[in-house]
Amino acid sequence: MKASQFFISTLKEAPADAEIVSHKLMMRAGLIKRLGAGIYNYMPMGLRVIRKVERIIREEMDRAGAIELLMPVVQPAELWQETGRWDKMGPELLRVKDRHERDFVIQPTSEEVITDIARQELRSYRQLPKNFYHIQTKFRDERRPRFGVMRGREFTMKDAYSFDRDVEGAKKSYEAMYAAYCRIFDRLGLTYRAVAADTGAIGGDLSHEFQVIADTGEDAIVYCPESDYAANIELAEAVALIAERAAASQALEKTPTPGKSTCAEVAELLGLPLARTVKSLVMATDEKNDAGEVVGTQVWLLLVRGDHDLNEIKAGKLDGLKNGFRFATEAEIVEHFGCKPGYLGPIGTRKPVKVVADRTVANMSDFVCGANEADFHYTGVNWGRDLPEPDLVADIRNVVEGDPSPDGKGRLAIQRGIEVGHVFYLGTKYSKAMNATYLDETGKPRLMEMGCYGIGVTRILGAAIEQNHDERGIIWPDAMAPFTVVICPIGYDRSEEVRAAADRLHGELQALGVDVMLDDRGERPGAMFADWELIGIPHRVVISDRGLKDGKVEYQGRRDAQATAVAAGEVVAWLQGKLSV
Amino acid sequence: MKASQFFISTLKEAPADAEIVSHKLMMRAGLIKRLGAGIYNYMPMGLRVIRKVERIIREEMDRAGAIELLMPVVQPAELWQETGRWDKMGPELLRVKDRHERDFVIQPTSEEVITDIARQELRSYRQLPKNFYHIQTKFRDERRPRFGVMRGREFTMKDAYSFDRDVEGAKKSYEAMYAAYCRIFDRLGLTYRAVAADTGAIGGDLSHEFQVIADTGEDAIVYCPESDYAANIELAEAVALIAERAAASQALEKTPTPGKSTCAEVAELLGLPLARTVKSLVMATDEKNDAGEVVGTQVWLLLVRGDHDLNEIKAGKLDGLKNGFRFATEAEIVEHFGCKPGYLGPIGTRKPVKVVADRTVANMSDFVCGANEADFHYTGVNWGRDLPEPDLVADIRNVVEGDPSPDGKGRLAIQRGIEVGHVFYLGTKYSKAMNATYLDETGKPRLMEMGCYGIGVTRILGAAIEQNHDERGIIWPDAMAPFTVVICPIGYDRSEEVRAAADRLHGELQALGVDVMLDDRGERPGAMFADWELIGIPHRVVISDRGLKDGKVEYQGRRDAQATAVAAGEVVAWLQGKLSV
Repeated sequence: MKASQFFISTLKEAPADAEIVSHKLMMRAGLIKRLGAGIYNYMPMGLRVIRKVERIIREEMDRAGAIELLMPVVQPAELWQETGRWDKMGPELLRVKDRHERDFVIQPTSEEVITDIARQELRSYRQLPKNFYHIQTKFRDERRPRFGVMRGREFTMKDAYSFDRDVEGAKKSYEAMYAAYCRIFDRLGLTYRAVAADTGAIGGDLSHEFQVIADTGEDAIVYCPESDYAANIELAEAVALIAERAAASQALEKTPTPGKSTCAEVAELLGLPLARTVKSLVMATDEKNDAGEVVGTQVWLLLVRGDHDLNEIKAGKLDGLKNGFRFATEAEIVEHFGCKPGYLGPIGTRKPVKVVADRTVANMSDFVCGANEADFHYTGVNWGRDLPEPDLVADIRNVVEGDPSPDGKGRLAIQRGIEVGHVFYLGTKYSKAMNATYLDETGKPRLMEMGCYGIGVTRILGAAIEQNHDERGIIWPDAMAPFTVVICPIGYDRSEEVRAAADRLHGELQALGVDVMLDDRGERPGAMFADWELIGIPHRVVISDRGLKDGKVEYQGRRDAQATAVAAGEVVAWLQGKLSV
Repeated sequence: MKASQFFISTLKEAPADAEIVSHKLMMRAGLIKRLGAGIYNYMPMGLRVIRKVERIIREEMDRAGAIELLMPVVQPAELWQETGRWDKMGPELLRVKDRHERDFVIQPTSEEVITDIARQELRSYRQLPKNFYHIQTKFRDERRPRFGVMRGREFTMKDAYSFDRDVEGAKKSYEAMYAAYCRIFDRLGLTYRAVAADTGAIGGDLSHEFQVIADTGEDAIVYCPESDYAANIELAEAVALIAERAAASQALEKTPTPGKSTCAEVAELLGLPLARTVKSLVMATDEKNDAGEVVGTQVWLLLVRGDHDLNEIKAGKLDGLKNGFRFATEAEIVEHFGCKPGYLGPIGTRKPVKVVADRTVANMSDFVCGANEADFHYTGVNWGRDLPEPDLVADIRNVVEGDPSPDGKGRLAIQRGIEVGHVFYLGTKYSKAMNATYLDETGKPRLMEMGCYGIGVTRILGAAIEQNHDERGIIWPDAMAPFTVVICPIGYDRSEEVRAAADRLHGELQALGVDVMLDDRGERPGAMFADWELIGIPHRVVISDRGLKDGKVEYQGRRDAQATAVAAGEVVAWLQGKLSV
């Protein structure tokens, strides 16, 4: 490809609304162009990256035995009503009425449609397992779209859905997809981690997120450098940091802590480590009658160590809390504790509350907590002696860096990541709602076991850039680069020799199937180099009269600090040694 | 590909709502699956055809210098308001409000968005010409979606848009697209015609439809077998069938024609050829004031020969009619003619009307027309003698088979066709509305000259089937077939020899890059053959024990009446001789 036959549009400055580096660089490199909030045109340079990503995904999905089809963007509401998602989903589901006032949705995913296909097409156990996928435009009406393609509204997603006879089969399908995803992200050349994720209401342990590692990632991912343990922060198990509760050594004392309402302030005031304090969080659960009216409320006191954070996902799995809980209102807090927030604690509440202690808190002794009286805390608090044992001991906190790994094999580390893929065992959630059954060997109808597997195609671009960039621009892995090699001739328009050498190299590389760009625009060297560094082409060859006089051209990898002179006759072989695709 | 790893789903009967053969066959062959009115899932077998069509389109668009990008499905209303299409388009434009109550459209085409891109990105004459295209999901909310993919609501279209400095450049871009379209439909293996089409309000002669020839086509296309003249029926010029008006030879006579209100009935009653009668059609144009109120109405009498049909597109280009006309109401007719429809004519109207005669009618003599009195016609009518010359003589009829070609080189023939592509010179219609200018050599802003070029990707499937099918099913051209060759082994599951021979052939063909399907399902031969004939695979090889005993396999092309025995060792070479891709 020659630049004159392509469309290149770079910007010196990123638009003001671009907050993160990938968004800025995608705009500046002319990969995307904003059409509306969270809606982008994929410009020619960006589309080339998307197509490369799609091709790798398609090849690996096919290799894993998945079968491609194409489901519509505009989908009838009836199917979404069948599963209840029509009502359950909020305004992020874009709804539209056609000319006959019939309801439709612009698909955010396709569970309903694929399950509708499956219940009609897959009738016998002989047809199972099956895995269907498509790569299609999706829409999610984000309340606040931002970060370019990272949280856009219209985006491209690969979504696959597996149908199996039983749980065992579904696990195999899941594993095949997990392996395919590893191959996909390996081939894309990204540093990533597959981390165990929460399965929510489905239960079980079959859910993994594929996270591209980047300091700027919005997800915290937890792993053990000494083992293969990896989970996202919502799921990662926090063990008790105190193996056994020590005997009480201090007397219970009510201490004035005027104006000190946080654990950190109290610890500082008292000259104690933060790890000696206990944080009190007050939640409430409502009991409702059939009409949905609240007929009773239970107040809960959740205790985590002062240096720890509550993990609401974990709390939401506890008996009593798993049907939904909320933060208690100030009125409820005053009613139960006789005190406003900031000085709350488990000792001497005005009305009984259910106390849930984190595993670590349950083993603490001589600790500090609020006294249920403004400007006072208790010190020297001990379970059993000063207050009853907690109603429940559970893992309700986020892990922190350095925690013991739950597999007992070392200590946990935490990285930031960007979720680009998700494999998920669905069980019979959708097949049950839509009565998607097959006939087993005995002729009995049975619900199909399902899994769903998504990859955010356009999001991968943003994630790859967050992971791979420098102050000059993007640094694409070879497999994703819009062009793998760029030839930058100096004086293409005025030197016969330069033009001939550049054209020859361009032709030779094309003949070898290398995705090569020849910049024939006649830009000055500085501007030309800056463009291709911004765009992030991984391999550059500079051809100049001066070099050719010595029979040399210059090679520079995008991450190389400086260029290397290479004999003009050997540059093809040199490049072949450098290219990973 | 082996059948067991793919998804094949054929039906004995087409669903009741499938009215035309392509719709029936696409449903029966499992290419598509209905999701809602005019909305289809593209099943794996159908998607393969789409991908092949898309690839050919993409290759030829790229070869022609067009540059691919991707514009969103969901587009902000503001741009559509700028060009006025938001108001002008009816309910076929699907409109949607996002969570913030902002208006959007689901794109039916992308003139607005591409012009928005062009006005921002193409600033200098040096950047022109440019041609951008995308292949993307479109939605048109048809009032009555039908005929499967032929008039669906959601469909895939390739739309390209060219931007040029001037009309001359735009013509070159147009010609390049015209040539690319010819290559595309040639490569797809379809019989088609490029026919001149009406340019509507834009004017000029730069509009061609690409019509796939099929008896079932909904468009009539006119061509001259002796020359390269071809146009659609709306545009094809009808010359006067009578070179010179003959002198009157009959007296004007008012003849009773009781109950005979059509030209055919009158001709039969009077024992005259239909070509001696003249048909009267009454139209009206309204004059409106600035407030849009009707302040005056002109009634028009349009005359075509009894055996001809009025062409409303042509009539709509006449002075006085080109701002819009309508059929006159019965009240208006009675007011002006003193008679109800059925016996109308140009002689002795009660109030003056403007008379437009078709070119042929203007040269008729001794003709028959209504007498403006119920149950009476005039015979022996002659211009000048019995009534004034017409106010206007114009081509206002459809051509008919056998008419002289307007290029004077022979007689016209008419075929039915299915429109699958359209190239269109847009001029400055959109660039003017959206102020898309570039700076010319003198630094002066000038409007870009535009063209648009569409191909209905999914529609091509239907058109190809309408053109290529028989009572057993589809007959794909090689280039479009979901698989080019199918290997049908008889006894794959029980004969070692058959299995080995089938697997070997499958492997050899795959190694040669042939898109081959091996049917390893173990179906009985009759069912297996019926499936692949229905699906329309163009080349079939049957491998059986009986044949292998003689060292033979059987080859049968989808259009062949019977199979040919081919030496097993030579079948690859045999196939290579047969395949066109």
